[in-house]
Amino acid sequence: MKAALIQQKYHKSKEETIQKSLELIDRSDAELVVLQELHQGPYFCQSEDVKYFDFAEDFEKDLEFWKWVSQKKDIVLVTSLFEKRAPGLYHNTAVVFDRGKIAGRYRKMHIPDDPGFYEKFYFTPGDIGFEPIDTSVGRLGVLVCWDQWFPEAARIMALKGAQILIYPTAIGWFEEDSKEEKQRQLDAWITVQRSHAIANGLYLISANRVGFEEDESGCGSGIIFWGNSFICGPQGEFLAKASSDKEEVLEAELDFSKMEDVRKIWPFFRDRRIEEYGCLLKRYCED
Amino acid sequence: MKAALIQQKYHKSKEETIQKSLELIDRSDAELVVLQELHQGPYFCQSEDVKYFDFAEDFEKDLEFWKWVSQKKDIVLVTSLFEKRAPGLYHNTAVVFDRGKIAGRYRKMHIPDDPGFYEKFYFTPGDIGFEPIDTSVGRLGVLVCWDQWFPEAARIMALKGAQILIYPTAIGWFEEDSKEEKQRQLDAWITVQRSHAIANGLYLISANRVGFEEDESGCGSGIIFWGNSFICGPQGEFLAKASSDKEEVLEAELDFSKMEDVRKIWPFFRDRRIEEYGCLLKRYCED
Repeated sequence: MKAALIQQKYHKSKEETIQKSLELIDRSDAELVVLQELHQGPYFCQSEDVKYFDFAEDFEKDLEFWKWVSQKKDIVLVTSLFEKRAPGLYHNTAVVFDRGKIAGRYRKMHIPDDPGFYEKFYFTPGDIGFEPIDTSVGRLGVLVCWDQWFPEAARIMALKGAQILIYPTAIGWFEEDSKEEKQRQLDAWITVQRSHAIANGLYLISANRVGFEEDESGCGSGIIFWGNSFICGPQGEFLAKASSDKEEVLEAELDFSKMEDVRKIWPFFRDRRIEEYGCLLKRYCED
Repeated sequence: MKAALIQQKYHKSKEETIQKSLELIDRSDAELVVLQELHQGPYFCQSEDVKYFDFAEDFEKDLEFWKWVSQKKDIVLVTSLFEKRAPGLYHNTAVVFDRGKIAGRYRKMHIPDDPGFYEKFYFTPGDIGFEPIDTSVGRLGVLVCWDQWFPEAARIMALKGAQILIYPTAIGWFEEDSKEEKQRQLDAWITVQRSHAIANGLYLISANRVGFEEDESGCGSGIIFWGNSFICGPQGEFLAKASSDKEEVLEAELDFSKMEDVRKIWPFFRDRRIEEYGCLLKRYCED
């Protein structure tokens, strides 16, 4: 099964940005296509402003549009949208379309909040749990961005039978950080995701944004989204890896029988000490 | 605080192997020294033979000896010993000594069993849980080898306040695997451990065996222990990294204030969705 991800920039308007997404999707004949986090617009969480909630107003229309794209292209399409659920109640939601139908959705569970990434202002933490989504190309463990730092999320998806972990994401550098700090952050981001593929013996697709976006509030220095999207196999081996500054379509062949072979030589699921893991359900485990 | 690990070969007898360990320990002025898994002898788990249980007969004497070393050198010393607990009841046990006293022990919780690594025959899975050990150089999250593939073990140690994850280990290649497969295995092993440092914002020391050891039963082709011991920081950044074929003393300076700084910019503990992690306590989560 061929999978592809789209790594792209924000193009100054929703229309032009979607147009670019469609152009890039058209370049691939993959059956599974993954778009980056909040791919229809800018990464607006650089500041807290109620005006940005307007980006969620067309959520229902967005669903219809991407459903149509998945049908026209005859693909499984992983999108990342700003969901208005009710007035004052919004989610960062990945919706998966399967050749003209909605296959399922995942509402981002772990919500970050740090300078330049003020997501707790915009997104209510997901309330539908970590549930893989069944599609015609396999069972997809869709997670979003900040989730990628949490081994628990990856493990739960795997224990529920996910065959591919998929992370639409939007992460980048601040100009003011040193070159060494930038490298450490990028390496950490790649490493922690590859480790989820390894620890759980499955494929992983991470689609990140690229390009500079300024902070419209003028308070921050903007974010240099670092790209470096990648697809890796069940030993964490790179199958495809993107640049840090270009728009790209990244493709790889995934073979679920290879995945099962790896789990036979590295049978981690066999040996988990579940009776001793109770502490994982606590915030912290003081003496 | 300066930490060191010893990466070494098996030297044909317990006496000569220990002599080499002492020589290597003498080269360092570190306050914390970590030895590799089952460092007193060969990696005997390449085959299943009751004669190897004899290696555990001197466990109590071994304790006295390494306690004496820790006192003489005035160090915190992490050892990895074959513990005879009762006739027919043995553990793969890391014992931590603190300047002449036993600070605590950890009994390997996840026990592997695959061709060449027949540990389930020898070692009863640990029954004292994942408990960090308090020492004069900090709170140590000591785990052993196969544990390194389980994010749960690392997370629990971190949630109990461990400042350093420590893995005495014995892992290597089989000659018959391809060059590419060997590289994938090594990369996976490094990556998954670095990810524990990243996901938990702490230091990590992994001390691996080096050198070829044949399978005395003649059934297997032997193991080429791949070395590559390393020390990394709370962003997974390498502080020191060893070769794949030489005996080495690897040292690094650890600074716990740096660790706390990293946790402030990457506050993963703040955002864990503990109420949604129940599935982690199950073997598998079918529909």
